[in-house]
Amino acid sequence: MKTVSIIGATGYTGGELLRYLIPHPGVKIVHVTSESSSGKKISAVHQDLLGKISLTLEKNNPEKIAKDSDLVFLCLPHAESAATAKKYLDAGVKVIDLSADFRLKDAKLYEKWYKVQHPHPQLLSQAVYGLPEFYREKIKKAKLIANPGCYSTTSILTAAPLVKHKLVVKNSIVIDAKSGVSGAGKKVDARYIFCETHENFLAYGVSGHRHLPEIEDQLGAKVVFVPHLLPVNRGILSTVYAKLARKISAKDLREVYADFYKDETFVQVLEEGKYPELKSVQHSNFCQIGVGLDSKGETAIAVGVTDNLGKGASSQAVQNMNLVLGFKEETGLI
Amino acid sequence: MKTVSIIGATGYTGGELLRYLIPHPGVKIVHVTSESSSGKKISAVHQDLLGKISLTLEKNNPEKIAKDSDLVFLCLPHAESAATAKKYLDAGVKVIDLSADFRLKDAKLYEKWYKVQHPHPQLLSQAVYGLPEFYREKIKKAKLIANPGCYSTTSILTAAPLVKHKLVVKNSIVIDAKSGVSGAGKKVDARYIFCETHENFLAYGVSGHRHLPEIEDQLGAKVVFVPHLLPVNRGILSTVYAKLARKISAKDLREVYADFYKDETFVQVLEEGKYPELKSVQHSNFCQIGVGLDSKGETAIAVGVTDNLGKGASSQAVQNMNLVLGFKEETGLI
Amino acid sequence: MKTVSIIGATGYTGGELLRYLIPHPGVKIVHVTSESSSGKKISAVHQDLLGKISLTLEKNNPEKIAKDSDLVFLCLPHAESAATAKKYLDAGVKVIDLSADFRLKDAKLYEKWYKVQHPHPQLLSQAVYGLPEFYREKIKKAKLIANPGCYSTTSILTAAPLVKHKLVVKNSIVIDAKSGVSGAGKKVDARYIFCETHENFLAYGVSGHRHLPEIEDQLGAKVVFVPHLLPVNRGILSTVYAKLARKISAKDLREVYADFYKDETFVQVLEEGKYPELKSVQHSNFCQIGVGLDSKGETAIAVGVTDNLGKGASSQAVQNMNLVLGFKEETGLI
Amino acid sequence: MKTVSIIGATGYTGGELLRYLIPHPGVKIVHVTSESSSGKKISAVHQDLLGKISLTLEKNNPEKIAKDSDLVFLCLPHAESAATAKKYLDAGVKVIDLSADFRLKDAKLYEKWYKVQHPHPQLLSQAVYGLPEFYREKIKKAKLIANPGCYSTTSILTAAPLVKHKLVVKNSIVIDAKSGVSGAGKKVDARYIFCETHENFLAYGVSGHRHLPEIEDQLGAKVVFVPHLLPVNRGILSTVYAKLARKISAKDLREVYADFYKDETFVQVLEEGKYPELKSVQHSNFCQIGVGLDSKGETAIAVGVTDNLGKGASSQAVQNMNLVLGFKEETGLI
Repeated sequence: MKTVSIIGATGYTGGELLRYLIPHPGVKIVHVTSESSSGKKISAVHQDLLGKISLTLEKNNPEKIAKDSDLVFLCLPHAESAATAKKYLDAGVKVIDLSADFRLKDAKLYEKWYKVQHPHPQLLSQAVYGLPEFYREKIKKAKLIANPGCYSTTSILTAAPLVKHKLVVKNSIVIDAKSGVSGAGKKVDARYIFCETHENFLAYGVSGHRHLPEIEDQLGAKVVFVPHLLPVNRGILSTVYAKLARKISAKDLREVYADFYKDETFVQVLEEGKYPELKSVQHSNFCQIGVGLDSKGETAIAVGVTDNLGKGASSQAVQNMNLVLGFKEETGLI
Repeated sequence: MKTVSIIGATGYTGGELLRYLIPHPGVKIVHVTSESSSGKKISAVHQDLLGKISLTLEKNNPEKIAKDSDLVFLCLPHAESAATAKKYLDAGVKVIDLSADFRLKDAKLYEKWYKVQHPHPQLLSQAVYGLPEFYREKIKKAKLIANPGCYSTTSILTAAPLVKHKLVVKNSIVIDAKSGVSGAGKKVDARYIFCETHENFLAYGVSGHRHLPEIEDQLGAKVVFVPHLLPVNRGILSTVYAKLARKISAKDLREVYADFYKDETFVQVLEEGKYPELKSVQHSNFCQIGVGLDSKGETAIAVGVTDNLGKGASSQAVQNMNLVLGFKEETGLI
Repeated sequence: MKTVSIIGATGYTGGELLRYLIPHPGVKIVHVTSESSSGKKISAVHQDLLGKISLTLEKNNPEKIAKDSDLVFLCLPHAESAATAKKYLDAGVKVIDLSADFRLKDAKLYEKWYKVQHPHPQLLSQAVYGLPEFYREKIKKAKLIANPGCYSTTSILTAAPLVKHKLVVKNSIVIDAKSGVSGAGKKVDARYIFCETHENFLAYGVSGHRHLPEIEDQLGAKVVFVPHLLPVNRGILSTVYAKLARKISAKDLREVYADFYKDETFVQVLEEGKYPELKSVQHSNFCQIGVGLDSKGETAIAVGVTDNLGKGASSQAVQNMNLVLGFKEETGLI
Repeated sequence: MKTVSIIGATGYTGGELLRYLIPHPGVKIVHVTSESSSGKKISAVHQDLLGKISLTLEKNNPEKIAKDSDLVFLCLPHAESAATAKKYLDAGVKVIDLSADFRLKDAKLYEKWYKVQHPHPQLLSQAVYGLPEFYREKIKKAKLIANPGCYSTTSILTAAPLVKHKLVVKNSIVIDAKSGVSGAGKKVDARYIFCETHENFLAYGVSGHRHLPEIEDQLGAKVVFVPHLLPVNRGILSTVYAKLARKISAKDLREVYADFYKDETFVQVLEEGKYPELKSVQHSNFCQIGVGLDSKGETAIAVGVTDNLGKGASSQAVQNMNLVLGFKEETGLI
């Protein structure tokens, strides 16, 4: 039995981690922290956990928590997360960071998009980008894992075969992404109150969103990326458009995708002519992808879906944990 | 006082027409028809009309209805609509057709996309495309008006300034459109039941949708067009992407739009940096558009919204009626 | 042309008032106020008003505003509202107050439920409760109108015939009410953010809600009242249960209701066996009621619906304004 | 490893059963049936199961399926279900029936409410009502289990302590229940299409609903029961009102509930003053209950929530299966 702790357990990603970890057969949750709610039962914050876990929230105390934790999940605001990661790493605890702090390798780029100096740029090189489909072997040996962003995970998995196989004109990629509201976290902001969001829909971050550099970094291609806010709790759908670099049939294109992900449990390529929907992946670690051509046969169109709190955050963190702690990768995830 | 009738009044577009026409100061609704519900009060079908109108549904009888109607709105399935239009036109009644039957000028193209022979191709040339912002003067004199499709109205208004001013590379236009469920009409289909749609989202018609040729026809440009199904009752948002043909600043691009629509009441161009949301146009005849550039300044991104039952169907039909019957264009619409 | 102003125009009731008043043929809106957003265009706050009204928000200045306003609508927090009402009344301006400040006749009761001393208890006796179906003639002559609460309007209209006709055992009345989220106003509170409300449902105020004394006051009966929070933007449905005091058939009971409201435009009693739904009254000033018996014939069950921003607030305020300013009661409301 | 089959696996309860059974450590799913979709992969119907199970749908063949199934779940229409149950029972297979066929002990009552003759009334006496909190020991030994209705489970668990402890006036009980749309199954009906349900709410079955006799049977008390249709996918909330038979404080009342369910894992009584919400029990086998008094201290108000597809159907069926097959009751449910 391995021991894990969640630093910052009261938000949506913290809650979702708990939902995956409570029935996980290989780990025991030993600490859950919150600065503002310490002293409360965790089930007083996440009321669905009543009767399932009886831990009490503590303040984050790395010295104490490091003593009996094999691994910590950090669900903290950016910058604060890197500072905390350092302490746990120094104490020999493995870290899976769900913030953005270790996703970009270039501290300058980080500072440009996140408007803050990176607290520990020297750690960037040892962090492994936690997308198991791309970096499985590295993750197994990592001490510090940068869990990918939700838009990033979905967009990268959906676009990757097009780019890696050089099927498309590089600077022609457009990613039109749509996310459920939990992607914004538990933020209490006028933008996210019910009546401003329900029966509504909008684009935002049109001229630049923080997940853009992460997507470009992983794809090795420049893209146009526009996120939209869906009136759903959870789920991301990315529609990827790219001009074909050479003629290919819809059938063959679908085969390229099927082959690309043939060994992956958590990425399912749909049959030719089928496109995925959010409800097929909500509350799961799965990504589903459908791919085809526009009516003129000139543009590849790939549609991918994940749960932004699942494969886009917490269940992917558990998938990474399984690799790091030596469990079967699918443990607790199907 | 002019007299109007609604042929096929029990669906969503018929109901919405009634909501605009009941308080309209210039017209009297004389007949509402339904083949399956004739004999029932119209307020038994659209229960919100109780206490507002007391008409009883009749079967469609062009001979009788033509006698006391200056104009009819057709809310019928395609092909059936053209056949009915002919009868009213022959009887000297003006026709606003909300179906797709007269939107395309080319009967072959119609037959390719709608999989049925056009009943009266000879009428195609006299039909006027009912987009007042483009064809106002022709509409005023028309006898037969082809009310545009909902996706088409939104996408054309949003993309037109880019194309008409030759600001973008022609074959680079991608239109990613999202529509509320009422766009599918009152269809009782497994696809549209609540639990298959709520807290869900998906792409459809990826390799070809019927509004595509209509959009291309009006824009005079080939486009990639993918519609998506939003879990909202009403509203369409189209995100238009196109590579710039020449450098232009976001500010100047916004000016091009503002200037293009400067005389239009029902198309509002937002301030620089602002993008519209569905709730700003629901239950109205307005279209709102925001436009800018991607983070690299190479791609124009325009976002437009309408109510698919408003400017995308019924209120636009009333706007057309106002022009045809000689009322002030805004009557009953603000 | 009469002149009206809205004091506190940026919230949901203020916005909805504007939607009714802009096309109203008898009034001109002269001032709209906001302390925090003064200087902004009103259409920058209510973006759907773009192209429909060009007023700029001002700070509330009773001295100035009283000069050219025949009537003001107050959309202010309780206590603040009574203080403001006094100033406008002193300046000879008619006041329709949408807050709770003048709904209860008893200052002690007000202070018990609203936890604040009433600023002007002497005004309570001259305020008229703005439910036109009950107090039409008084409203016509009133200077100060207390616009009813949203739960109150719905519950009172739905239960009144049972009580007034002494059909039910008095202390047996249970009102189970369900409201859309806009009933809470534009409050930015963790309770109302999208992910805490969407695909969710809950009871609140179980042991006491502020609308309870108002309902009891108007009905002249003690009731059990429990409100619930519906995941919809707008609409209230009240289900009223009461033990019959004497045997009556469902048909006769329905007749009692139909007769009770036979002269009312805005209260529609449905046919026997029919019960109303929210969507029949959203965006309107109508109330619809269905009434019948439980399976044993011992309990009357009445179900009533209104739009909490319509008949439950802003359109009812316009109905009151029509009476006060001498317009036909239905003007601008159908 | 025990073997189980699902007869009628394509509906919502069948799908939900699969979601609980796939990761269950003690059972293997051997057959899934569908008359209309036989030959298809089960993951082609429930697309979220792609990559999790590879069974193909078969037609229901009791002779064949009985050979290698220890237990079958019946997710069939009423009447059809009883006929099928007989065949499996005769072949020595244990049956958990999710239909209404064995919930009422009285065939006459069944026929009155379900408008059909019971195919095998002789089986009624041996069927055990599958509410483990009430009939745990009987269930362990049962061959035929009548899995309770969704409204029934919620309403019975919420009202039972009041009745069993004789705290309330018996004929005063009112149950106002609200259910998500999946309670109606995957029915393709005009009533359940998105635009008729979303941003809407209504009461139905006011003068009698099929779950009423089941609730009265189990509670041993006559009740007034009115169901309502919530615009959510899943979840039921029942608000129970009853006049107190004797004075009791809110605190003591809450203690009665806590004590009543003190040994139950899946029924959680909230702290005094707290009331539950749907999202705390969705996708789970839990029921949460809050209880208190109205403002006058005369009426007990208990609010209970379950997931209609969880504790109200499929996860409760798994709980019953655990008891019948000798697993720990919580297996696969936390």
